[in-house]
Amino acid sequence: MEQITVDLGDRSYPVYVGYGILDDIGSMIDDRRASILTDDHVSTLLGDRVQRSMTASGVETQTIVVAAGEQSKQFSSLIGVYDELLSFRVDRETPLMALGGGVIGDLGGFAAGTFLRGIPYIQVPTTLLAQVDSSVGGKTAVNHPLGKNLIGVFYQPRFVLADVETLLTLPDEEYLSGLAEVIKHAVIADEKLFSYLETNRDRVMSRDRDALMNMVTTSVRIKSDVVSRDERESGLRRILNFGHTVGHAIERLSGFGTISHGRAVATGMAAAVRASERLGEIGRDDADRITTLLETYQYQTALPEHSVDEYLDAIHYDKKAQGSHINFVLTAGIGYVTVKKMRATDIVDIIV
Amino acid sequence: MEQITVDLGDRSYPVYVGYGILDDIGSMIDDRRASILTDDHVSTLLGDRVQRSMTASGVETQTIVVAAGEQSKQFSSLIGVYDELLSFRVDRETPLMALGGGVIGDLGGFAAGTFLRGIPYIQVPTTLLAQVDSSVGGKTAVNHPLGKNLIGVFYQPRFVLADVETLLTLPDEEYLSGLAEVIKHAVIADEKLFSYLETNRDRVMSRDRDALMNMVTTSVRIKSDVVSRDERESGLRRILNFGHTVGHAIERLSGFGTISHGRAVATGMAAAVRASERLGEIGRDDADRITTLLETYQYQTALPEHSVDEYLDAIHYDKKAQGSHINFVLTAGIGYVTVKKMRATDIVDIIV
Repeated sequence: MEQITVDLGDRSYPVYVGYGILDDIGSMIDDRRASILTDDHVSTLLGDRVQRSMTASGVETQTIVVAAGEQSKQFSSLIGVYDELLSFRVDRETPLMALGGGVIGDLGGFAAGTFLRGIPYIQVPTTLLAQVDSSVGGKTAVNHPLGKNLIGVFYQPRFVLADVETLLTLPDEEYLSGLAEVIKHAVIADEKLFSYLETNRDRVMSRDRDALMNMVTTSVRIKSDVVSRDERESGLRRILNFGHTVGHAIERLSGFGTISHGRAVATGMAAAVRASERLGEIGRDDADRITTLLETYQYQTALPEHSVDEYLDAIHYDKKAQGSHINFVLTAGIGYVTVKKMRATDIVDIIV
Repeated sequence: MEQITVDLGDRSYPVYVGYGILDDIGSMIDDRRASILTDDHVSTLLGDRVQRSMTASGVETQTIVVAAGEQSKQFSSLIGVYDELLSFRVDRETPLMALGGGVIGDLGGFAAGTFLRGIPYIQVPTTLLAQVDSSVGGKTAVNHPLGKNLIGVFYQPRFVLADVETLLTLPDEEYLSGLAEVIKHAVIADEKLFSYLETNRDRVMSRDRDALMNMVTTSVRIKSDVVSRDERESGLRRILNFGHTVGHAIERLSGFGTISHGRAVATGMAAAVRASERLGEIGRDDADRITTLLETYQYQTALPEHSVDEYLDAIHYDKKAQGSHINFVLTAGIGYVTVKKMRATDIVDIIV
């Protein structure tokens, strides 16, 4: 088992990454009682295992099950979670554990961060995307009818437990969605991870134990390093948005859910690489290397067909577009990154 | 104008206390745009003045008006606020100003703390209770059908502007509600303020300018000092609950809204003083002095008639009752305080 500390002063916490460590979860809870938030899909796959571990450690539990999928990030689901926490008489010392993917982490983290002005929060991410991305950084959110993640808080967990063995049952599409964020981490910060992904395609795709451990621990280390230096996304943390400005636009234009987040980000990265080359931030060879890696893992590198105006509207809609300028993240060579304030029109001019 | 800094590291902020300073609010906003949240009552009294000041300073504003009263702390009101912020295209740099009493501060603070994971927040409290109590500490909340303030976040404002002149139009009942918290501050931390309240009853009741300035600045200083040392209410901050364990029980038993928060706290303080005397924490003379001051300002010092079991249930219901023991705040002489872990049954045995 690896342990990575996310260093945030008095809000620091450990991320445990291991293989099969889900069975130890009960022994890691110091409290007599705990609430578990999960979805109906994860509950079927892992609910019994977690329950057994908790019972063995003498932890009394309540399990709150919501429907799998983005629709559970609505206000009505959130209010349902509050109701259940109240019925279990959760007090300020009772932890809430989020067992599941990004939706469960976002919903559970927001509920934990706001119930009684904050109760202890434990994150058990069970998708690759959640393990390499949302397990670090404390971003939580629910959706508003007008946009995703518009309502949220920064709230750090007490600890994160990422069992990579749980990734073996992930559908391919979800696995690929998370893998795009792993590639992102390699491009922005780690040439060694990038090379590993180039030369170990088969092990990565077959979800080999060592490959999973390497990808998750390295990603957590990279993200943790960035977040430690910029908890509230005022500067440095923006580099994690590499591929996301265009990626979000693609998700919006395709209709959310039509294309996975990771696939959209992969295509967004390819666009950002082209922009980086055009703007002289990266040479042809490195640009080709990144594009080739994305293609190796079967991501689309060409933008979906939409008009310039459609891309412009979609990019403007993104809440990260502050005023008329956008912090567009470019690559400056593999493992290096630079952020440029650009007008949306200029971005679209270059990429479309 | 007095300026008191609430010292919370990188979340520190100033509280400005003055007479007639509301007209300067526009010049204190550095941004081109701002949202103002207020209620229909305050809007009628002060809306134009604030609007004029903002316009004079070239700040484009949106005003969100909710109904006056506790019912505006429902989820449905909160969601309405989010909708309006979106329609004004509020981004992460656009401040939200809460202009009003405790309800507006709680609702506005929660909305600001959760919209886009936190936008700048400015607090302009216009009741005595809000100026001396909720303007310091960053507590925000909305209500759940099962209880008040169950959902909330700690979120610190960018600054607080407390114009004591706005207190001249407060109904007597609301003024008295805030005054109880001023007395609380005197009892727990400031013998000098206590003496002032004893010897200046007429000036206090007539809302003399100097009396208001003294009460508000001293209260803000006391609360600020406590909160600076315990932002998230893990220890010291509990002393601010003096009178509140029993006060909340009285509010609950009378039906919320029947009796003002301050009146309930005043009666709760009288009960806590009796308990302090019985437990040997305070002498008869000091106990009498506090009780007399409460009576001087026309608060009830005898508990309303309810059975022992009713008091027990009501105290247990309070979310601050963790497990079977309650942190009961006792006075240890005027200006001094002590916290004792007690079972609810023992508290009720002593006070009823």
